Amino acid sequence: MTTMTGGTPLDVPRGLAGVVVTDTALGDVRGREGFYHYRQYSAVELAQTRSFEDVWYLMTEGELPGPDARADFAARTAALRVLPDAVRDALPAIARASAVSGPLSGLRTALSLLGASAGFRPVYDIDADRRRADALALCAAVPTVLTALHRLGQGLEPVEPRADLPHAANYLYMLTGSVPEADRARAVEQYLISTVDHGFNASTFTGRVVASTGADVAACLVAAVGALSGPLHGGAPSRALDTLDAIGTPDRIDGWIRERVLAGDRIMGFGHPVYRTEDPRSRMLRSIAQGFGGPLVEFAVEVERQVEAILAELKPGRELHTNVEFYAGVVMELCGLPREMFTPTFCTARVVGWSANILEQAEDSKIIRPAARYVGPPPPQPVPAV
Amino acid sequence: MTTMTGGTPLDVPRGLAGVVVTDTALGDVRGREGFYHYRQYSAVELAQTRSFEDVWYLMTEGELPGPDARADFAARTAALRVLPDAVRDALPAIARASAVSGPLSGLRTALSLLGASAGFRPVYDIDADRRRADALALCAAVPTVLTALHRLGQGLEPVEPRADLPHAANYLYMLTGSVPEADRARAVEQYLISTVDHGFNASTFTGRVVASTGADVAACLVAAVGALSGPLHGGAPSRALDTLDAIGTPDRIDGWIRERVLAGDRIMGFGHPVYRTEDPRSRMLRSIAQGFGGPLVEFAVEVERQVEAILAELKPGRELHTNVEFYAGVVMELCGLPREMFTPTFCTARVVGWSANILEQAEDSKIIRPAARYVGPPPPQPVPAV
Repeated sequence: MTTMTGGTPLDVPRGLAGVVVTDTALGDVRGREGFYHYRQYSAVELAQTRSFEDVWYLMTEGELPGPDARADFAARTAALRVLPDAVRDALPAIARASAVSGPLSGLRTALSLLGASAGFRPVYDIDADRRRADALALCAAVPTVLTALHRLGQGLEPVEPRADLPHAANYLYMLTGSVPEADRARAVEQYLISTVDHGFNASTFTGRVVASTGADVAACLVAAVGALSGPLHGGAPSRALDTLDAIGTPDRIDGWIRERVLAGDRIMGFGHPVYRTEDPRSRMLRSIAQGFGGPLVEFAVEVERQVEAILAELKPGRELHTNVEFYAGVVMELCGLPREMFTPTFCTARVVGWSANILEQAEDSKIIRPAARYVGPPPPQPVPAV
Repeated sequence: MTTMTGGTPLDVPRGLAGVVVTDTALGDVRGREGFYHYRQYSAVELAQTRSFEDVWYLMTEGELPGPDARADFAARTAALRVLPDAVRDALPAIARASAVSGPLSGLRTALSLLGASAGFRPVYDIDADRRRADALALCAAVPTVLTALHRLGQGLEPVEPRADLPHAANYLYMLTGSVPEADRARAVEQYLISTVDHGFNASTFTGRVVASTGADVAACLVAAVGALSGPLHGGAPSRALDTLDAIGTPDRIDGWIRERVLAGDRIMGFGHPVYRTEDPRSRMLRSIAQGFGGPLVEFAVEVERQVEAILAELKPGRELHTNVEFYAGVVMELCGLPREMFTPTFCTARVVGWSANILEQAEDSKIIRPAARYVGPPPPQPVPAV
């Protein structure tokens, strides 16, 4: 038994489900109440009333910024959008290499290179200010990297970041080369805020395990990006939209959905492992989508209505509502984001949550190192040590 | 409480110490007996009697190879030493970028690029043979990447791998440009075999967490390299050698060691969290070092003798022996490896252990996702969901 401590091995649920690995002041998800929060603030309220930069500041600095801190933080992060030459020069090669494997493998490579070229040092060897600066540099670079890789993949030149645009507007600008309309930039900003963090998911945990060894911030974030790329990690907002496409027209909803439900298939965009009520992110994003209006939104609302009715009829007693994927996909489609950029867009926000978790973990000094139980054939009796 | 399962949160020791996260058939460490094994075989016996390729095959295929399998495996892995152009062409830029941050950050970047360019797919989307092939490609490339980065950092051209040399000999050949003497190649090979795996350490666990999301093999190994780069992860064989240098001459041993022990400092190369007896790797590596002989070995043995006597006198009752770092450093120095390549050399072996763990984890289908406990200020009472 490799406990590495000499202590008694402790059996727990598979996949460490429900095992409390750390205390956190970063937030929580209350599945029964349909509520989640960042630090002591309702995440949905933050999305409705604050900028992305405010929430980014809240997560990594621990409080909402006042006017001076806000201006200073905006200037600092805007300057960090410009990639160092070592990374910029490597992007065409990374874009070619990741053409078959997808944008997250390109992001993983570029962030690794950025951390290496910046000479990041182990989190335990530097102070909290330096750790925050390292995390800021990586988070600020993520939109630049992702949009550049996307454009290079399309045969287009990357668009240099603009320091005079807020985070979300600049992201859309770098993607398309045009300054976005205000309502679209704000819709994407609200989506980004709502997805900065959401409990102790596998990528967040991965980042914290690597941080617990004392590795540098880039090593932690690169590992988290890798975990996010796993299909079991969860969300892929493009899948729900693909479902809407597959259904096609309102008259086909009932037949299409009944067939899938009776076959035992999961309906993409519905159901969540935690929320027993409506997903609060879904409610907010539906409202944003309805603000835009149009046939896609009307169709999505009708699909939601019919799916909930059919599920209530065929699976009575189970609470199955739309999850964040469903209306996130609709909102991103309305804002002109191509589907292959849905998960990368999610990543531009979640990297802030990962960073906050990594910074919090670095304040601890205990390595996360569980045990395994050997269940193979017995080895020969060892010769006693002399 | 973010349990993501709705279940009761479960409190366990800090850092998950002693918490059994998985069953494994890959091996175990028996600290009280001074014994560790790979599958059902004594690791030290494997190092004494087998080739690196045999043990690599054992770990990833599940059994020792017969003659045909051995020849086939040697040919396959030798062919995979040659890097794809996408990676080879990027190495000069990666070497420049990682010059300040060290070889592991360069390896992390190059492996990420290799996985991306090879179009690796999620482990849950491919069969076991394909997963093994992906892991093989990355493990076989690690020595080529590390030696090329090292040589580029020295202003030298990389040396192309040779398919006619065994794994360890080819590693030394790519590093120096000369075919190594047989006894040195064999000493390094034995060191590599002895360090393929060693219980459920933080980098191994990291690789398995990422694999549990279904991410591709490159994402898993890149994350593990990141965890290994953390100073709390453990070993750095160059530190013990630095201690020998600092002591300098036999007459200074007693004074130097007493001063450090009385000051409460840790003596690098001594003590292990698991072994209560002598570290079996240390015993084997001492014997290899003594086979070479010479003043460094005599000095190291004398330091070991005096440190153990002083620790027994000043810290009675504590079992403090040399750990793997101590004689690993001596053996690598004797074999002509530069100190900055000690940890990378360790990594060329451990990547095989990580791979075996990732392949084993991929046979499971349960994501590893523990919980966190919110301890920050209370958020406002949520508005009940409607």
